[in-house]
Amino acid sequence: MKIAVLGTGMVGRAIAGKLSTLGHNVVIGTRDVEQTLARTEPDWLDNAPFAQWQPTHPAVQLAAFANAGAYGEIIVNATQGALSLTALEATGAANLSGKVLLDVAMPLDLSQGMPPTLTVANTDSLAERIQRTYPSTRVVKSLNTMLADIMVDPARIPGSHNVFVAGEDAAAKETVTILLREFGWPEEAILDLGGIRAARGVEMYGAMTFALSAALGTFDFNIAVVRA
Amino acid sequence: MKIAVLGTGMVGRAIAGKLSTLGHNVVIGTRDVEQTLARTEPDWLDNAPFAQWQPTHPAVQLAAFANAGAYGEIIVNATQGALSLTALEATGAANLSGKVLLDVAMPLDLSQGMPPTLTVANTDSLAERIQRTYPSTRVVKSLNTMLADIMVDPARIPGSHNVFVAGEDAAAKETVTILLREFGWPEEAILDLGGIRAARGVEMYGAMTFALSAALGTFDFNIAVVRA
Repeated sequence: MKIAVLGTGMVGRAIAGKLSTLGHNVVIGTRDVEQTLARTEPDWLDNAPFAQWQPTHPAVQLAAFANAGAYGEIIVNATQGALSLTALEATGAANLSGKVLLDVAMPLDLSQGMPPTLTVANTDSLAERIQRTYPSTRVVKSLNTMLADIMVDPARIPGSHNVFVAGEDAAAKETVTILLREFGWPEEAILDLGGIRAARGVEMYGAMTFALSAALGTFDFNIAVVRA
Repeated sequence: MKIAVLGTGMVGRAIAGKLSTLGHNVVIGTRDVEQTLARTEPDWLDNAPFAQWQPTHPAVQLAAFANAGAYGEIIVNATQGALSLTALEATGAANLSGKVLLDVAMPLDLSQGMPPTLTVANTDSLAERIQRTYPSTRVVKSLNTMLADIMVDPARIPGSHNVFVAGEDAAAKETVTILLREFGWPEEAILDLGGIRAARGVEMYGAMTFALSAALGTFDFNIAVVRA
């Protein structure tokens, strides 16, 4: 598949790198290609500059949001959630129309430091906003409940644990499920939470993620749903 | 221990009944004793009227909030979250002062039907509001992440799964942890999330609970935190 991954951070790199390794044709989208490549300092999360990462995945191209969007048959939103709608606007409605958009972003408000709050919650969610803004795009929320390294390598966590999908379009969720399977998620680990409104659940779980990570001293964990 | 459980619903009954079975002296607090006993219809969750439940736990007394609060050395808030501050006001600040308050309530807004939203979220939580309103009360948030039957009988769910505690007072969290152990929670299942702000995490996880329950067709599940 030709896949556009929007976002050059930790999450975008992990997903783009894995998709490329799996044999997909991947373009990473960014606001300003030259500026992204010109950065020489680690970002606020201490990730190496993109220009240092790219040689480790030479098949992955970097392009402006609009060019990436035009290229991708599937779009992955791995931008910072607070900036996702701006990034999607730059990607262009025509480039998003009819396509599956896998939204892995978290709408974190980091303006007051850690732990973050959410820029949208409770009565709405980022994924719902994206779906409302691009009604002909087939938005599927998934993967946002865990560290990027776990998203693309679930075996990193021992035993059973879960990943969730939510969206209005059953075929789009099936497409995302196939990608999740390629990432290594067992079929029984993938829980379909229903329509896009369920994105509130997985986004609001973010507050739990940060509380858990503070308690455990690591983000290297996931949750398993255990039934009676 | 002399324990006051505020709230006559499913959660209050489960906790009061279990505490009584364990040998504690338990009073359930309600707004209006006569009205509570006079009800003959199931509630909106199809729970039998309180007067039908009480004979199954004859040692559990029913009292007005203020009388229950005066009696209890430990207070359990098992009222509907949207009404908890009103119930605590009726219980009385003097009756809450210095005591451990185990807050198991969920601030659900059911006015728009199912799934509910929260009456407070993201930048605040019910437990933080209670702690701010009663600064000399030692609030501990716990147990609100699961069905009442699981709270008091964790073995109902097979294998490892977790319960969380959050609060400012370490000794109060220890008191709650002892109760959780009496309920059957293994020591390693009890995760301390830190200060009361972490209540946002466990309350906002409620959106996830409702999404999961819709997908699974049951509330009879819990989550396990699985580390790398």
